[in-house]
Amino acid sequence: MTAVADSRTVTTGPITGSHKIHLEHADLRVPQRRIHLSNDEHLDVYDTSGPYTDETATIDVHAGLPRTREAWDRGEHRTQLGWARAGVITREMEFAALREGVPPELVRDEVARGRAVIPVNRRHPESEPMVIGKKFLVKVNANIGNSAVTSSVEEEVEKMVWATRWGADTVMDLSTGKRIHETRERVLRNSPVPVGTVPIYQALERVDGDPEKLTWELYRDVVIEQCEQGVDYMTVHAGVLRRYVPLTARRVTGIVSRGGAIMAAWCQAHRRESFLYEHFGELCEILRGYDVTFSLGDGLRPGSVADANDRAQFAELETLGELSALARDHEVQVMIEGPGHVPLHLVAENVRREEELCGEAPFYTLGPLTTDIAPGYDHITSGIGAAVIAQAGTAMLCYVTPKEHLGLPDRDDVKTGVITYKIAAHAADLAKGHPRAQQRDDALSRARFEFRWRDQFALALDPDTACAFHDETLPAEPAKSAQFCSMCGPKFCSMRISQDIRRAELPLVD
Amino acid sequence: MTAVADSRTVTTGPITGSHKIHLEHADLRVPQRRIHLSNDEHLDVYDTSGPYTDETATIDVHAGLPRTREAWDRGEHRTQLGWARAGVITREMEFAALREGVPPELVRDEVARGRAVIPVNRRHPESEPMVIGKKFLVKVNANIGNSAVTSSVEEEVEKMVWATRWGADTVMDLSTGKRIHETRERVLRNSPVPVGTVPIYQALERVDGDPEKLTWELYRDVVIEQCEQGVDYMTVHAGVLRRYVPLTARRVTGIVSRGGAIMAAWCQAHRRESFLYEHFGELCEILRGYDVTFSLGDGLRPGSVADANDRAQFAELETLGELSALARDHEVQVMIEGPGHVPLHLVAENVRREEELCGEAPFYTLGPLTTDIAPGYDHITSGIGAAVIAQAGTAMLCYVTPKEHLGLPDRDDVKTGVITYKIAAHAADLAKGHPRAQQRDDALSRARFEFRWRDQFALALDPDTACAFHDETLPAEPAKSAQFCSMCGPKFCSMRISQDIRRAELPLVD
Repeated sequence: MTAVADSRTVTTGPITGSHKIHLEHADLRVPQRRIHLSNDEHLDVYDTSGPYTDETATIDVHAGLPRTREAWDRGEHRTQLGWARAGVITREMEFAALREGVPPELVRDEVARGRAVIPVNRRHPESEPMVIGKKFLVKVNANIGNSAVTSSVEEEVEKMVWATRWGADTVMDLSTGKRIHETRERVLRNSPVPVGTVPIYQALERVDGDPEKLTWELYRDVVIEQCEQGVDYMTVHAGVLRRYVPLTARRVTGIVSRGGAIMAAWCQAHRRESFLYEHFGELCEILRGYDVTFSLGDGLRPGSVADANDRAQFAELETLGELSALARDHEVQVMIEGPGHVPLHLVAENVRREEELCGEAPFYTLGPLTTDIAPGYDHITSGIGAAVIAQAGTAMLCYVTPKEHLGLPDRDDVKTGVITYKIAAHAADLAKGHPRAQQRDDALSRARFEFRWRDQFALALDPDTACAFHDETLPAEPAKSAQFCSMCGPKFCSMRISQDIRRAELPLVD
Repeated sequence: MTAVADSRTVTTGPITGSHKIHLEHADLRVPQRRIHLSNDEHLDVYDTSGPYTDETATIDVHAGLPRTREAWDRGEHRTQLGWARAGVITREMEFAALREGVPPELVRDEVARGRAVIPVNRRHPESEPMVIGKKFLVKVNANIGNSAVTSSVEEEVEKMVWATRWGADTVMDLSTGKRIHETRERVLRNSPVPVGTVPIYQALERVDGDPEKLTWELYRDVVIEQCEQGVDYMTVHAGVLRRYVPLTARRVTGIVSRGGAIMAAWCQAHRRESFLYEHFGELCEILRGYDVTFSLGDGLRPGSVADANDRAQFAELETLGELSALARDHEVQVMIEGPGHVPLHLVAENVRREEELCGEAPFYTLGPLTTDIAPGYDHITSGIGAAVIAQAGTAMLCYVTPKEHLGLPDRDDVKTGVITYKIAAHAADLAKGHPRAQQRDDALSRARFEFRWRDQFALALDPDTACAFHDETLPAEPAKSAQFCSMCGPKFCSMRISQDIRRAELPLVD
């Protein structure tokens, strides 16, 4: 099943070997993906893909997704943090808890203490609520968005659909080219996941790319416009203080965050403190009105392993701690962005410091890349760091695609980036002992041991690739039920021999 | 430059942006790869690729590589372990030290205490000596070899050349199909790196794939044949004892090592102890005669995260400890193979136990895969585990390709596997503080900050892919000197803004 979007298609239909189900609970319909196995068992897994994988849904990209959450409106407008502190379990909390398979009280309590966030702008009623926090499944964000050089609105909508199909829990629209507003509008109206942005990008477009011309008033208007549209969380680089900029002077790679560089240039040009810092209280008031979540940006994150964990980076983190407390005082939800490029032995310190300084606000990191020497493979250099930092307590991972540092990701890159980060997130979930995480590993491993090839494919993060790789060497249909594969051939199959040993009625001495 | 190999070609010629040089030291010519930069600087890096990347070399795959080490023969035949214990620095040790940039005494001392090995069968004089141990650069092994289902001798020779081109420090020829002897012969005569094997595979072929028919005498003859040919290290699953087999009965995936399964089946069928264990002393005597290194196989390694660190696995490891002591008593070099599938929180324990039980013999691990749910991406699930286990002290990593569990790797898979594992190894080298490791990161990051695009490509682990990805979005030649890339476009380039800030004569307050 496909649906027309501005004379091209978005991807629809179930993922191979599965179909969409819904947990019905009071008036909530919580999506899950049911994977069907050949032994009549099934496994239900967390599902980020929205109605696009639902065969019974009608997709109309022009009309957008159903505005389900409009009916949940409580009249009184408080943030999830506000409700949680008041002891109330909102529908959003309950929905998120059902997806995770955890008690709703846990979600409420973690939100109340600021250790989890539920990014749900009231003006994005199309989204399916989810929770970001270290006590929950590690989440993955996929960046999409056009640039001045390339890409179109339609492509970005399809990238969002495609990324969430493979498991992206949120998307960030980082468009910097033409039609920023229109691109974001189409993404929001069709996105089943929270959408994040970096408002400074649109603000900079309005002043023709000259950071000096930025003003608080102009920035504020962009933020309000984006809040009105329904953006769920916003990256704000309010921690780049004027006095921190010189700390980057001796770095190997200076400032590599776009937002950070823009604000640093502004501070230098005007010889003034950052307007984002000075007006942060007003920003809180604006975001609170919509329940938009702060993602406090790490504008001074290291862009090379040489610059990791340096004074500039940790000075900014201290300020983010101060700002996160201020945001909570305003009942605004907040998470903290993290690096960047960090060698393995310095990764854990980032989590420790963030938790100390920012009251355990959910940490949201880009990678980190554990080495600088593999452009073209930075999904892998960073996937390693992502798994390790998530194991240490990071709540959400921003993906990196193979095109990082080199170009804008295409559809294949988006998929590779998402799958790589689902691996990192899941590896961390296993290491942290999330109660449901190992079910899928065990189901797949049992299928592997029993030569249920189709079940292995269906349980894989990417069934299509797994099946295609198998077919490359043994394409014939009987091979799908063969008691071996092409790696070893029939005589050398350890699993077959191992089964033979079991069949020989081995005495159990365990 | 290409050269004919049995009517097809092997890959020759330098890697883009570099050429082969040699450090001349007494009668030693130690290969390095010199990467040329546009600012007239250069960086010399470790080079595993042999004469194939040397424009001045003549490649004749039929004749094989020059037998350089024949001239080093000391008459008296001792192993590197024997010489090291006698306080002698051999040419092999000196050669390996020069490659690493460390004192030769360190190599000798580490070999003497059994914490490093130099796999150099005297009958493989074509190889360039290298050292494997936790004090040195983390090494990467690439598995090649045909199976009953697919592949040819020529393809395997090219896979070896291709794998070492991208950085494989050793190759294992795991052929199980036809022409095992001939394939190995062609690989050995053309391999600049140590070659490992698993002799039980060839032994099993001799008895038509029926493990019950194996005998010590038949196995011994295969080992002698392979020693004579020049195999540098051999995987021997002598730790799979009869009493350990029942410990695998309740596992999710039983026994997944081919060698382990074969030996378990033999023990069960004969109701006897493993002939590898019972004749281990004789094996030591054979291997000592050639200075072949033991790689004591982990026949009971976990094949799923559910089975990680279980009784079967650690029982075998105890026996490997006993056998490694025995090997050293015979002055035979020894390393220990490790898992497998292990979730992140259980990885470090593997290194700790191995070091305790096996006297810190170099640990040589397959991955480990940190989750079972991503067939098609197991280079990544395992690359994460590989980086973490190498940081914890593993000396050599056996690569895993995207085809793991699904089929036999082709040329592209071999490259992807090697590059992924070079990333993991390098991430660990950085984390362990290897004195030379960060030079390359810093050189690449400086090139990145200064928009020296061609230098970035040349310094990358895979220059061709990096350049191709860049060209996909900005193919024009001027883009190679542009002060931006297609990710952000000119206005949003943080590095450009960051440079502008520096040019504004920022006061240094550091």
